[in-house]
Amino acid sequence: MFFEVFMPPPSAHPGAPTLADSVRLAEDGVHILDRRVFPFEHRWVHARTVDEVAVAIEDMVTQSSGPYFAVLWGMVLAARETVGDDPDTARKRLAAAGERLIATRPTNDQPRKAVDWVMAAVAEADDVPAAALAGAQAGDADYRRRSREMGRAGAQLLPHRARVLTHCWGDLYLLGLVEALLEAGKQPSFICTETRPYLQGARLTAHSLAEMGVEVTVVTDAMPASLLRAGEVDALVTASDRVTMDGHVINKVGTLQHAVAAQTFGVPFHALCHAPDPRSATGADVPIEYRDGQEVLHTLGQRTATDLVRGLYPAFDVTEPRFVTTVVTDRGAFPPDRLSEYFGEESR
Amino acid sequence: MFFEVFMPPPSAHPGAPTLADSVRLAEDGVHILDRRVFPFEHRWVHARTVDEVAVAIEDMVTQSSGPYFAVLWGMVLAARETVGDDPDTARKRLAAAGERLIATRPTNDQPRKAVDWVMAAVAEADDVPAAALAGAQAGDADYRRRSREMGRAGAQLLPHRARVLTHCWGDLYLLGLVEALLEAGKQPSFICTETRPYLQGARLTAHSLAEMGVEVTVVTDAMPASLLRAGEVDALVTASDRVTMDGHVINKVGTLQHAVAAQTFGVPFHALCHAPDPRSATGADVPIEYRDGQEVLHTLGQRTATDLVRGLYPAFDVTEPRFVTTVVTDRGAFPPDRLSEYFGEESR
Repeated sequence: MFFEVFMPPPSAHPGAPTLADSVRLAEDGVHILDRRVFPFEHRWVHARTVDEVAVAIEDMVTQSSGPYFAVLWGMVLAARETVGDDPDTARKRLAAAGERLIATRPTNDQPRKAVDWVMAAVAEADDVPAAALAGAQAGDADYRRRSREMGRAGAQLLPHRARVLTHCWGDLYLLGLVEALLEAGKQPSFICTETRPYLQGARLTAHSLAEMGVEVTVVTDAMPASLLRAGEVDALVTASDRVTMDGHVINKVGTLQHAVAAQTFGVPFHALCHAPDPRSATGADVPIEYRDGQEVLHTLGQRTATDLVRGLYPAFDVTEPRFVTTVVTDRGAFPPDRLSEYFGEESR
Repeated sequence: MFFEVFMPPPSAHPGAPTLADSVRLAEDGVHILDRRVFPFEHRWVHARTVDEVAVAIEDMVTQSSGPYFAVLWGMVLAARETVGDDPDTARKRLAAAGERLIATRPTNDQPRKAVDWVMAAVAEADDVPAAALAGAQAGDADYRRRSREMGRAGAQLLPHRARVLTHCWGDLYLLGLVEALLEAGKQPSFICTETRPYLQGARLTAHSLAEMGVEVTVVTDAMPASLLRAGEVDALVTASDRVTMDGHVINKVGTLQHAVAAQTFGVPFHALCHAPDPRSATGADVPIEYRDGQEVLHTLGQRTATDLVRGLYPAFDVTEPRFVTTVVTDRGAFPPDRLSEYFGEESR
């Protein structure tokens, strides 16, 4: 792992928020913006090999959608190393690289999907490196297209000048929604929870929305109910790490709390998700990951709790369908009890 | 205002948690433990005059019950300066000091109550300084007695080995409850929210409970609903800044959120309060104080949000009676719709 003061390659999406294009492929490797210190520092981690990409993901250099893109480009690095191999040998080496990358995040499905894009593209190819690059580029484009389509479906649910409450960092999901709202001239404003302990809301969400010209207010994680009760929020909108087929939303811990308060005070909750997970029937199927409780006792590396106690960090929570108004997908918005219709026409 | 590395006078309550005796009278003035940096630093602010006591309160050196005690002992400092005055002149000077101290916290009633204790004691006195000291000591003893009685009433509501969720810092209210639980052999454990932005839960509550030998776990402000849903909490218990006669609980922002989640998942919410406020009929009578939004963007002085946004800091919220199970007073526990019975026998 090399931490360098390094100029990353230019953005492929100039004008977009910094985090919309924060994992970039170059001749010399993959450049990954370090979300652990953003926006206080704009530090790019330079990964020269597949293993360095994997370590960067494991070390939380990039999060949310970031690992998906890092895996796409990491597979391209692996394919470059197969130049001169016969195609079958190249595919075997690429499959091994994919296994290394998938293992970085055992509970998150995105790395596997990224590997699948590349492996499908090289399956019949004679020129494996070229096919891998084309597959990764297709995977990149697909993710962005689906986020935009989901965003447009979500924007239709929100009124003009909507005051939107969000929690944690929605990455391209959220940016797709905001892009669609701005294109429709709806002039949204956002309230972001700061999202302890990593402060994704205060650092990533708030910064990206401000870069898009949206008015943003940051509140602590304890304030949403008070704002919901006061009628200061038109909708709660979050991304989701997974949505089960029966409408349970798994997302950053705190989502449940805000969804319960939203329902109590008559505010709709829309959860963004490219698609429900056909392999997760219900919420009880999804184990909740507990991360190191020490994180709760610190803030950006500084101790912020007494030394005498322990911390507890369930990283996600499960929001039952009764608290979910709509699941917004790239094929439109569904009530949580009608998600099977997502797969009605075709199986994906 | 003098910040010194200074040995405070010895505690009048040895063995109690540090914060139970953190405003102390001495020959040379009033010594106030600085809660803004506790427990990372044990810094005592030495106030030599009434005005220095007032400035310490205004600067948030002490909070919660702290200003009550600071005003009691500040009035004693003022009385000392009247030695040699005739009694009427001394009372007038003391009344002026009281006005200065009351003005430190316009929305909090505790400074006024502390001044009342001293002024009542000197009303008929020939030796005003001696009567002021006796009055302040009586006010100190009364507050501690009422907190203990309230604590015993609250302890009766909790089961053996109760797992209690609390928010922010309950000061002597909370310590009275825990003392009663421990005396009853009930072996409670606590989950404390960290309570952003000032982190009273992570710093003050968690530390004091640990000092009392209670097992404490700190979570972020977004986690309680998840724990309530998982059945890991037996009761939500908080202090309150005010309880209205019709059972609205005004307390640190976030209390509403946790109370809504507790009710949703079938967990009782008990609010601690010496007495309901006979001058507040209902929640709409209580204005919500908005503090500087910059606080939300910082943590212990360090910037923790992007520079591009504003913060919002409603300091308190209002929890409706429908989310309150019990209001626990020094005269026992009442359902929120029967608080008028508190004043049934006598008016206070």
